[in-house]
Amino acid sequence: MIIDCHGHYTTSPRQHESWRTEQIAAHKEGRSVPARPKITDDEIRDSIVNGQLKLQQERGTDLTIFSPRAAGMGHHLGDASTSEAWATACNELIYRVCTQFPRNFIGVCMLPQSAGVSPRNCIAELERCVTQYGFVGCNLNPDPSGGYWKDPPLGDRYWYPLYEKMVELDVPAMVHVSAACNPAWHTTGSHYLSGDTAGFMQCLTSDLFKNFPTMKFIIPHGGGAVPYHWGRFRGIAQDMKLPPLQELLLKNIFFDTCVYHLPGQELLAKVIPTENILFASEMIGAVRGIDPETGFHYDDTKRYIEQLPFTPDQKAKVYEGNALRVYGRLAGQLKKQFG
Amino acid sequence: MIIDCHGHYTTSPRQHESWRTEQIAAHKEGRSVPARPKITDDEIRDSIVNGQLKLQQERGTDLTIFSPRAAGMGHHLGDASTSEAWATACNELIYRVCTQFPRNFIGVCMLPQSAGVSPRNCIAELERCVTQYGFVGCNLNPDPSGGYWKDPPLGDRYWYPLYEKMVELDVPAMVHVSAACNPAWHTTGSHYLSGDTAGFMQCLTSDLFKNFPTMKFIIPHGGGAVPYHWGRFRGIAQDMKLPPLQELLLKNIFFDTCVYHLPGQELLAKVIPTENILFASEMIGAVRGIDPETGFHYDDTKRYIEQLPFTPDQKAKVYEGNALRVYGRLAGQLKKQFG
Repeated sequence: MIIDCHGHYTTSPRQHESWRTEQIAAHKEGRSVPARPKITDDEIRDSIVNGQLKLQQERGTDLTIFSPRAAGMGHHLGDASTSEAWATACNELIYRVCTQFPRNFIGVCMLPQSAGVSPRNCIAELERCVTQYGFVGCNLNPDPSGGYWKDPPLGDRYWYPLYEKMVELDVPAMVHVSAACNPAWHTTGSHYLSGDTAGFMQCLTSDLFKNFPTMKFIIPHGGGAVPYHWGRFRGIAQDMKLPPLQELLLKNIFFDTCVYHLPGQELLAKVIPTENILFASEMIGAVRGIDPETGFHYDDTKRYIEQLPFTPDQKAKVYEGNALRVYGRLAGQLKKQFG
Repeated sequence: MIIDCHGHYTTSPRQHESWRTEQIAAHKEGRSVPARPKITDDEIRDSIVNGQLKLQQERGTDLTIFSPRAAGMGHHLGDASTSEAWATACNELIYRVCTQFPRNFIGVCMLPQSAGVSPRNCIAELERCVTQYGFVGCNLNPDPSGGYWKDPPLGDRYWYPLYEKMVELDVPAMVHVSAACNPAWHTTGSHYLSGDTAGFMQCLTSDLFKNFPTMKFIIPHGGGAVPYHWGRFRGIAQDMKLPPLQELLLKNIFFDTCVYHLPGQELLAKVIPTENILFASEMIGAVRGIDPETGFHYDDTKRYIEQLPFTPDQKAKVYEGNALRVYGRLAGQLKKQFG
């Protein structure tokens, strides 16, 4: 089975995003928020059949670990209550997708984060999504301020209540920022990659995984700048008298394969142990075009993986085995959804 | 000749940095700043002979394009006047190094930037350093707030007065942040690399090089996350209906080779045209140890370059030719300093 661990519902029915716009406008103007729009099963079906499902079939992947649109999380907008209502709406849609396409999508939730608000606030929604919806992970935004980096780093005890719940539920987090509202950052071009790099470094300089030895983070977009600068990070850790990165971080940190050209994928496969690489494409996402150098979609990452010198055993790990290990509830949920 | 385009004076005499501490303390307390300390030629000589010069000789490089300590620039500290006094002191020291070791060091200045203060403020110091000290470039900090990213992106007209002076003087800028005062960022681990990535993306989304077709930027640390994600950036530009990156940016943007392991260097050489790669080590800098996997210093980047499949002509470009092209005043200054 080929499991794509990084897909967002970027094709959700239009009234869903329109309601978000209304919600934030109402919040700003102090008006009451209109009722959530009706979205029919057919509308959901259409958005998937002509979108992610079509690409799964064309590209020959089997299952997407599916979460709300990352740039749409917008934790810098509104306040704790708008974030809560929006997260509820987004996660419910993911659940409906997984219910309609149980063999193709398994859910991961967004969290109702809000800049400057304790992550304690996210516990109830995480628990609800995992226990009621059968979700297997969450997306954790290390910068709810949208590019101003106002919240404490991930190693801070500020985040611990959420981590305790993650560990209790046996779900990992993908460390994934949302849209940048800071004009210095371009959401998918620089903010995502820098969020990945910052998140990794925040782990490196903390005792997070001493305190949560079973907790797992996936760093998306091939780990931001990290694998390309693996020597730099190894050297910085060494200068700080820390253990080797493999020992310090690689029991807990994993990288996805959202890297959109072969040389990047070759580097990732060369420097990061195979056990720490999870197949992913982020489709339909940041880059939608066809690469004139290959004739195929930039984000058709399976084509790159197929060109790497992996043994069949290694490839099975990247496509399936590692995901089953990192997402502790995935195997059980697969059984449920596959009936 | 082997030109290292990225070296900082990280070994400056202790009283220099002590004065900075006093200066900022005095500013905070509203006291007048003590006079600058006396630094003798011998002290400067010692700091170089046992530091950067020793490593140049050991590693077989010839000349370092040398600038004040990047993390020490601290544009988030004090105000416009403290930045001006500090930049003056730092640049003067660089000039003294270049005067004592004219065959080994050529100067690049730091700018007296200050968060929220117009870069117009930097013009006089840039001009002074270029015309009086013979410096050949400057370091431009895209985030003088030290990790909060409060200033406009590099494509904004805010920066244009400085660019006009750079073009007039025919000097490039290395886009290099300083220390992070934001706990979300680790200075050398994540802030530097994210600053590089942000700077590149700010250029990509602007018409900067339409308006300044001869201006040149060096993106240090191997371009941050950019070459590893070259496919992503190509794809994002394409989705935005922009010309190919080579046409859009590579007449103006160059990458240095401060990447501290062979696989990263291989990637850089593979995806970025040789014409856009400048040899550099950032020594003595972010990573000081010896890589147990090779037995050599992580930042001895010449060893990696020697292992790449460059033709002699390509290697000459990376080591020397590209630097002479990017730093328009370098050839003339070399003649002056070599006598």
